Amino acid sequence: MQEDTSKRTDVNELGEFGLIEHLTKDFKSKNASTAYGIGDDAAVIDNGGDKLSLVTTDMLVEGIHFDLMYTPIKHLGYKSVVVNLSDIYAMNGIPKQITVSIAISNRFSVEAMEELYAGIKLACERYDVDLIGGDMTSSPKGLIISVTAIGEGERDRVVYRNTAKVGDLFCITGNLGAAYLGLQILERERKIFLEHPDIQPDLGKETYLIERLLKPEARKDLIEVMRKSDLVPTSMIDISDGLASEIFHICTQSGVGAFIEESGVPIKQETEVQAIDFKIDPITCALSGGEDYELLFTVNPKDLDKVKYMPDIYIAGEVVDESEGIILNTKGGNRHPIKAQGWNHFKP
Amino acid sequence: MQEDTSKRTDVNELGEFGLIEHLTKDFKSKNASTAYGIGDDAAVIDNGGDKLSLVTTDMLVEGIHFDLMYTPIKHLGYKSVVVNLSDIYAMNGIPKQITVSIAISNRFSVEAMEELYAGIKLACERYDVDLIGGDMTSSPKGLIISVTAIGEGERDRVVYRNTAKVGDLFCITGNLGAAYLGLQILERERKIFLEHPDIQPDLGKETYLIERLLKPEARKDLIEVMRKSDLVPTSMIDISDGLASEIFHICTQSGVGAFIEESGVPIKQETEVQAIDFKIDPITCALSGGEDYELLFTVNPKDLDKVKYMPDIYIAGEVVDESEGIILNTKGGNRHPIKAQGWNHFKP
Repeated sequence: MQEDTSKRTDVNELGEFGLIEHLTKDFKSKNASTAYGIGDDAAVIDNGGDKLSLVTTDMLVEGIHFDLMYTPIKHLGYKSVVVNLSDIYAMNGIPKQITVSIAISNRFSVEAMEELYAGIKLACERYDVDLIGGDMTSSPKGLIISVTAIGEGERDRVVYRNTAKVGDLFCITGNLGAAYLGLQILERERKIFLEHPDIQPDLGKETYLIERLLKPEARKDLIEVMRKSDLVPTSMIDISDGLASEIFHICTQSGVGAFIEESGVPIKQETEVQAIDFKIDPITCALSGGEDYELLFTVNPKDLDKVKYMPDIYIAGEVVDESEGIILNTKGGNRHPIKAQGWNHFKP
Repeated sequence: MQEDTSKRTDVNELGEFGLIEHLTKDFKSKNASTAYGIGDDAAVIDNGGDKLSLVTTDMLVEGIHFDLMYTPIKHLGYKSVVVNLSDIYAMNGIPKQITVSIAISNRFSVEAMEELYAGIKLACERYDVDLIGGDMTSSPKGLIISVTAIGEGERDRVVYRNTAKVGDLFCITGNLGAAYLGLQILERERKIFLEHPDIQPDLGKETYLIERLLKPEARKDLIEVMRKSDLVPTSMIDISDGLASEIFHICTQSGVGAFIEESGVPIKQETEVQAIDFKIDPITCALSGGEDYELLFTVNPKDLDKVKYMPDIYIAGEVVDESEGIILNTKGGNRHPIKAQGWNHFKP
């Protein structure tokens, strides 16, 4: 490989976000239509009309993001679309189109691809998006899926990460930490299976946690609820890398701090029970787990009454001055600084 | 892997285009803004303004599309952008934004990624496009690059593949077959190197052919020339899979035939000499070689005078009735049916 071997920096030293920042910092946008580039859930293109275009893309790699030993390939197709739609909703936009590029090794049959596309089609139908293009090629090893989602947002209603204001309220949708525990359960079963192929798993009581991992949904429903109530968050991000990482993105980019109540972070009872079973603190699953595809957003306190009565939305804390840091107020009344622990794909 | 083993069809049986057609045929577009989906160089999104949005995507996989043993990684970054821009130009559009997603194994250093992004940046600068997003993840093996390009086209000037009319003239830009021979040269040198690591290659006289493979350019220049001359082709496609495959796309989708003069297919002298050296008929390199990133388009005969004097554009034949087939009239005066021999990544 033609590469200067005189200096070699491992990508682990920078991590995913650090590497992106390092590699793209010198790129300057020149086109008037490029309204917002790298650094939010989606890029924003302004073609001059009432609507702004939103663009986001994600790549899922076998052996890194999914294990086909326990991931039904139809679910994988569904999820590969949904994770991208979640980024469009996180801009307060509506996804409209997707492209899907696939690389497959010769171990995959036409029938396996039919299953994958059945999942993609189901997601397109549920979320009203159109498949408009893509690429299909072979790979030396494994399955790689790259999806780009394109959506639209009203000019004065697109919501960014960098616009939270001191005094705003932090809100979280749904519940957190379940997908992470679903992953732990499936990893446990995989190990048992590899050691004792004759033991059949009984996953009945853990169905919810596993489904949260294998077949997540994007919060289209709540974006619609907010629209009907004429509520526009002051900032928003989707929770894909764990709550801690997302709070950091909003705080760093908005130049603010956060005061989060542990009791305000929504965690389902099944998640709590399972976390304790695995000897993990449930709040750790929420803060560092990832793959929830819920939304974290901030609202102006004048909108408290609107948000208070919305279904499946929980007030988790307050935006504070940057100097106060990013703090978790535990149920026991202790104040801990939250650490950014975004999912680092480069650290196995 | 969870896959029904009762029936297993190998993807080779369908090939790239057959597989895409098979997997996506039941997808129905629902959004009014989806003006044109799968089946052209780029998809078309209509948000109601003067301009239409164009979207295209390509995935490049190490070991399938490129070999880092002889591909400088900066060139690879450049090429991964250019091949997508070529698809936007083939719609008679102007590319404006790109997203770039990368998966890398731990064999790649930060310095190698800096080189890759230096190539991406150079392409962005030369073609006036903005990098607006992407994804960065690890892979179990090799480098995968997925680029999506977004462009714009004037509503009445976007050009499709399916609108060639009987009597139109086929035109080809630049010259064909060079990249294919560049690949053969590098493959030959690779084999020599593996067997005799001490022999240094002397590639001086083959520079042009190799550069055509490693650092292709998209025909932005000629799209601008056509615009200035107010020439709108009646159909257009970029020549990425070999001329034969592209003629078939235009003919099949337009419901027409083609009569192509071998003497009208532009082939550079270096290409001819090298082809003969490899004991390959030069026209075969043009028809089946691929990776030229030139344009094949048709014009109304009333525009003959405009196109005749344009630089680097060659009239290669005529659109005929579908019943007459797709024919090559050789320099020796023989008429051969052209076979579609698009690059099939699934057949090594």
